[in-house]
Amino acid sequence: MVEIRQKPGTYSYAFSRYIEPIARVNTGEEVIVHTLDAFEDRISKETDSPTQILGKYLNPQTGPIYIEGAEPGDTLVVEIINIEADRDYAVSANIPEFGGLVTTPTTRFLNPPLPEKVWIYKKEGDMLRCNDKLCYPWRPFFGTIATAPDMESISALTPFDQGGNMDVRDICPGNKVHLPVACEGAMFYIGDCHARQGDGELNGTALEINGKATLRFSLIKGKTIKWPRIENDEYIMTVGSAKPMEDAARIAYTELVHWMCEYGWDELEAYEALSQCGEMYVGNMVDTFYSLVAKVKKEYVMR
Amino acid sequence: MVEIRQKPGTYSYAFSRYIEPIARVNTGEEVIVHTLDAFEDRISKETDSPTQILGKYLNPQTGPIYIEGAEPGDTLVVEIINIEADRDYAVSANIPEFGGLVTTPTTRFLNPPLPEKVWIYKKEGDMLRCNDKLCYPWRPFFGTIATAPDMESISALTPFDQGGNMDVRDICPGNKVHLPVACEGAMFYIGDCHARQGDGELNGTALEINGKATLRFSLIKGKTIKWPRIENDEYIMTVGSAKPMEDAARIAYTELVHWMCEYGWDELEAYEALSQCGEMYVGNMVDTFYSLVAKVKKEYVMR
Amino acid sequence: MVEIRQKPGTYSYAFSRYIEPIARVNTGEEVIVHTLDAFEDRISKETDSPTQILGKYLNPQTGPIYIEGAEPGDTLVVEIINIEADRDYAVSANIPEFGGLVTTPTTRFLNPPLPEKVWIYKKEGDMLRCNDKLCYPWRPFFGTIATAPDMESISALTPFDQGGNMDVRDICPGNKVHLPVACEGAMFYIGDCHARQGDGELNGTALEINGKATLRFSLIKGKTIKWPRIENDEYIMTVGSAKPMEDAARIAYTELVHWMCEYGWDELEAYEALSQCGEMYVGNMVDTFYSLVAKVKKEYVMR
Amino acid sequence: MVEIRQKPGTYSYAFSRYIEPIARVNTGEEVIVHTLDAFEDRISKETDSPTQILGKYLNPQTGPIYIEGAEPGDTLVVEIINIEADRDYAVSANIPEFGGLVTTPTTRFLNPPLPEKVWIYKKEGDMLRCNDKLCYPWRPFFGTIATAPDMESISALTPFDQGGNMDVRDICPGNKVHLPVACEGAMFYIGDCHARQGDGELNGTALEINGKATLRFSLIKGKTIKWPRIENDEYIMTVGSAKPMEDAARIAYTELVHWMCEYGWDELEAYEALSQCGEMYVGNMVDTFYSLVAKVKKEYVMR
Repeated sequence: MVEIRQKPGTYSYAFSRYIEPIARVNTGEEVIVHTLDAFEDRISKETDSPTQILGKYLNPQTGPIYIEGAEPGDTLVVEIINIEADRDYAVSANIPEFGGLVTTPTTRFLNPPLPEKVWIYKKEGDMLRCNDKLCYPWRPFFGTIATAPDMESISALTPFDQGGNMDVRDICPGNKVHLPVACEGAMFYIGDCHARQGDGELNGTALEINGKATLRFSLIKGKTIKWPRIENDEYIMTVGSAKPMEDAARIAYTELVHWMCEYGWDELEAYEALSQCGEMYVGNMVDTFYSLVAKVKKEYVMR
Repeated sequence: MVEIRQKPGTYSYAFSRYIEPIARVNTGEEVIVHTLDAFEDRISKETDSPTQILGKYLNPQTGPIYIEGAEPGDTLVVEIINIEADRDYAVSANIPEFGGLVTTPTTRFLNPPLPEKVWIYKKEGDMLRCNDKLCYPWRPFFGTIATAPDMESISALTPFDQGGNMDVRDICPGNKVHLPVACEGAMFYIGDCHARQGDGELNGTALEINGKATLRFSLIKGKTIKWPRIENDEYIMTVGSAKPMEDAARIAYTELVHWMCEYGWDELEAYEALSQCGEMYVGNMVDTFYSLVAKVKKEYVMR
Repeated sequence: MVEIRQKPGTYSYAFSRYIEPIARVNTGEEVIVHTLDAFEDRISKETDSPTQILGKYLNPQTGPIYIEGAEPGDTLVVEIINIEADRDYAVSANIPEFGGLVTTPTTRFLNPPLPEKVWIYKKEGDMLRCNDKLCYPWRPFFGTIATAPDMESISALTPFDQGGNMDVRDICPGNKVHLPVACEGAMFYIGDCHARQGDGELNGTALEINGKATLRFSLIKGKTIKWPRIENDEYIMTVGSAKPMEDAARIAYTELVHWMCEYGWDELEAYEALSQCGEMYVGNMVDTFYSLVAKVKKEYVMR
Repeated sequence: MVEIRQKPGTYSYAFSRYIEPIARVNTGEEVIVHTLDAFEDRISKETDSPTQILGKYLNPQTGPIYIEGAEPGDTLVVEIINIEADRDYAVSANIPEFGGLVTTPTTRFLNPPLPEKVWIYKKEGDMLRCNDKLCYPWRPFFGTIATAPDMESISALTPFDQGGNMDVRDICPGNKVHLPVACEGAMFYIGDCHARQGDGELNGTALEINGKATLRFSLIKGKTIKWPRIENDEYIMTVGSAKPMEDAARIAYTELVHWMCEYGWDELEAYEALSQCGEMYVGNMVDTFYSLVAKVKKEYVMR
């Protein structure tokens, strides 16, 4: 089995086709990918100061991984077979001017910031435990997953129409993620493993951990999608990332309407159907763009 | 048991303390309230034209109902014991310039509108059935529930900090809704029964139906809340309504942080907790303000 | 000449047709209207504490004034002939949780607030002077002007499609304001005189002063407009109020396109024209809704 | 004098430090830079179809230009001495799914699009003339100007904190533009010359023209700014680019507060000052981010 680790010092902080691939992978084979945490593994105790330790490069990605046969206009399907932790603790932090309930450089005010604070959670069996009050089950997923854009190099902190830092809890074992392919080899990236996260990633951090993902890639040749899609036995889902948040919601639901049309629905009827059986949750409300997930049960679509 | 029906022609299209109460109710007693549908029961077949039939007064409310003992600064708790349909069909419609995926008078563009279209769903046992593709289980709730504001009279189409047209599916049997009391008697309103709705109420309409609600009121004297809350055995939830949508998300989660503080949490720790175990879904993305629901399992709060 | 003063204790804090008119006025006659400042004249020195002094009722309006002959569907034209100060000082204040660069109850975060602070400006001839650095020319206008809505009673702090608390500096002498009439007599309100204001009303307060307005009303019978318009010799202007701010911009420019169509322009051509010669500034970025002004020179329209 | 033309086929569609400089320039010398129009000069008559002619690469930039001595953390000052047209006509177009009053891929709805249409304006002396109604004075400026970011490569269609596609009419002769320097040599880009534009660039296009700019560069060594600034004899100005639009407004005014603090103002007092004498207009309401300009007269600052 192919096992991919980035060489220290070569992690990528942007999704870019201009970076040399670190591995070439065939569709159909199982691949194991190791990732650093979003803080570059540099925070490990509650006395660490994120503002002093962290620089401007964050959220290191493992990649790009060249997928043999992938060409612009295809769809890359990433099956997430398994996620394991690559260490025994997870990190979360309150970082000044970052988060969903604080002022930021983008939503900018004159108010003073909140204090910074680090929380360390030990992984104990299937639980992540910081203290008696902060203690939750292991529900791992990847915060960041993308193919490289055609022209731009996009910060690994940004979610966009080819994936990126969506922080959507459905990028998890058992699910398949569909991503647009914009350049030869797709140039796939993954990182930002989360032991767990609430909807919205409220203070800007999940339970950040090193991850070991078991993945399998396949291609839908000649099929072009506009935004990421997720699928499992029960649901089809779409992710929209934008600001203001309603634009993310509109993108996600429009994409879901169009996906239903691929199953034979008329646009107006799909719009009506989702009005009665669509579901929508907030992936992140903290990143460069907000990510919302629209979903519908397959039993309501395949009729 | 008290049974409340509005006299024809006296339905309220605004939440206002200036309207004479239609009934006075004691806390603790079971009350049955009948409501018209959001279209004033004026649309009943697929050939009806909403733009020709509907006027500017929409979403008729049953109320105000005076709750004995309620005073400004109290919290009114509305236990939703049961919801039954008061007729055997529900109505949904695509209405030009109204909905989440079309241009509206507020998010206004020069594009031409979509066509209008009415869907009629027959209630057949526990299912609502329009045709083979549009057919869903009965999951009733009230789209609109409010106490009257102190000074303003607010359109029954608007969600606000005392409730209103939130279109949140958790206003359902088994749940208790907490509303701020701003004037004597609380002046309670309810309407807009939905046989079912998807998250976001995407095209602006749910499965609109006449409702028969069994309710029980209680008061938390001297307790002032800022926004609606919902509670059941498993969850505590808060609703924020605003535009842009991120403002609704911020309100809902801030209120949930503050609610957790009432259970002994420190603010920063509650913020961290919700980052890992909070949930957030979209109630509506079509009304005057968008409504988002933040929720957290009681098992994660009461520790 | 008719001179209108509100009787103490009867100022209105909402635009509402349900309030008894304080005066009846004929079109064509000159009317003098006196107004209190937005703080109800309760702040007069720098040691005053707004949070302790001010209650929840703010921005008192003089009105409603019944305009003889006004009927729903008409347009009320308000000619602002003159504005004088009714006292020799103006007040501005930094109020916690209110303003364009601070967190508010609507755009809500956990950050601590800024301190409160009052600034008093003496009117010295044509200058308003707080100190050597804060000293500006007299450029008076009314922050708030409205007709009453048909059904709702809207807080005097809110701008809306019939005017309200727009805080737009072009509601000034020399200009005519067009407002939709929604009920008999139009039920006109005015208040919130500003000795001067920057674009956006950045900290939420202008140079707040008592005003004495000389007005003349006229009616355009049977002409229905959707949002406020302003006109002078050089410009036609439209005001849109909404959140997010881009919705206000879209409303204002769409209304201006439609106004140009009344002068014989084709919609697509008016859209092109405004792309090259439209102007747009921010009225307020602090109120319940943001108000933006779109304007175009008459010489570019009347061709 | 240095005269810079890009070699055909080498125009840049992104701001990126990874592209080889096309010229190296010393501070203090006058430089002439030639630019293509935003449509790559490919549209020249009213029968041209933008959707058929234009590809995905748009808004070609001349650059990168290496400024000798520029280092990360400096501020690059670009003096715009003169702008001349490099041809005798300008082009504007209504392009489906692009513009401020139509649905777009980001603010996405199901409504049908508007038709496309091209307008050609002849330059006749100091006027741009399409027909008798569409005819305006020459008021040239550059829509796009930027230094390269440190890590990302950003599409030339995007405005950001180092400039980019701001479409702000004050990037014009007589004004100096201050840009942050993020990498060695600053890696300066310019393009998107506009013969004229209304506030907001309403339909997404100005009077697009080939430009010939006379520029002079200087450096403020060791001075780090966060967002673009503009200065002339009368005003200091800041540009914020973000979505929703209020975030752009908040950035611009916060930056202006901070700029005033460099002149000795206290933050709270600068906030008060701008509340009374700040000005704010909309640069663009059509690009990836909206750009707003905050400005204040120097006479109100330098006291």
